[in-house]
Amino acid sequence: MGLFSKDIKTMEDLHLHGLQDIYYAEQQILKSLDDMIDKATNRELTKAFKAHKGETETQIARLDQAFELLGQKAKGTSCPAIDGILKEAKSIAADISDKAVLDAALIAAAQAVEHYEITRYGTLIAWSQQIGSVAVARLLQISLKEEKVTDKKLNALAQAKVNAKAAQ
Amino acid sequence: MGLFSKDIKTMEDLHLHGLQDIYYAEQQILKSLDDMIDKATNRELTKAFKAHKGETETQIARLDQAFELLGQKAKGTSCPAIDGILKEAKSIAADISDKAVLDAALIAAAQAVEHYEITRYGTLIAWSQQIGSVAVARLLQISLKEEKVTDKKLNALAQAKVNAKAAQ
Repeated sequence: MGLFSKDIKTMEDLHLHGLQDIYYAEQQILKSLDDMIDKATNRELTKAFKAHKGETETQIARLDQAFELLGQKAKGTSCPAIDGILKEAKSIAADISDKAVLDAALIAAAQAVEHYEITRYGTLIAWSQQIGSVAVARLLQISLKEEKVTDKKLNALAQAKVNAKAAQ
Repeated sequence: MGLFSKDIKTMEDLHLHGLQDIYYAEQQILKSLDDMIDKATNRELTKAFKAHKGETETQIARLDQAFELLGQKAKGTSCPAIDGILKEAKSIAADISDKAVLDAALIAAAQAVEHYEITRYGTLIAWSQQIGSVAVARLLQISLKEEKVTDKKLNALAQAKVNAKAAQ
């Protein structure tokens, strides 16, 4: 979308822009997960990040399907929000010397990513229903559910193990 | 925090950095709310943004108290995540010509902000408890609860009125 070109005129345009935004975001998340897997020390955390990498690939495939259902070409649009969230994650990780503290920071960073996805999928499901794209809404519901489960899993891991180890 | 200077050595350092991050974020959110209030057309949405502005001011005061409880000077640190989220909100708003569609986009942008705050407060509460700062945890719990209520209120407004009007 061109800046100040007022390209978004209808709810359908806004919905498509939202899909392009999360399509770009998921691809950036996929790239950053390798880095997070490398940096994590706790074995369960590494495992959780690896599992989420697989999920992210499936979520991208689901978005491909959503574009197809709408008769649109799958493409991303710049998403300063996810760029900022991932930039912050990288910058804080570079600032930490202790491995256990780094694990705690990595979980927090991953949960910020999850919450971004949760809010965007939530919005896109509501917009899909509003414009009558029930099949798209159903697809995105699956991804939303996965993101919520991942967030809860990370939360439990932080509270049960990682935070305590970081505070030792 | 200086890039690559490994300033964060302990969980206490990480916790303090997190407080500085959300302190900066809340101040940026406060500034951006005036712009969102100006742009919103739906009366209930304007009202919700105005109410959230007041809440944000209280949440900043609560963070001041948290710094004080820790014997630390209240200060912010750069937060590329919130900068990105707010930049995206501004850029999409500039791209929309229809007022009802703009309202739908503004709610989505505000919910992305809420979710950022929800994830950061959630993490900070867990970290506060871990390092034994029970009083700080209690303070932040109040803010977390407010953010969740605001997110739900925006959700209800979107689903009950704003999205339908945008799709007309």
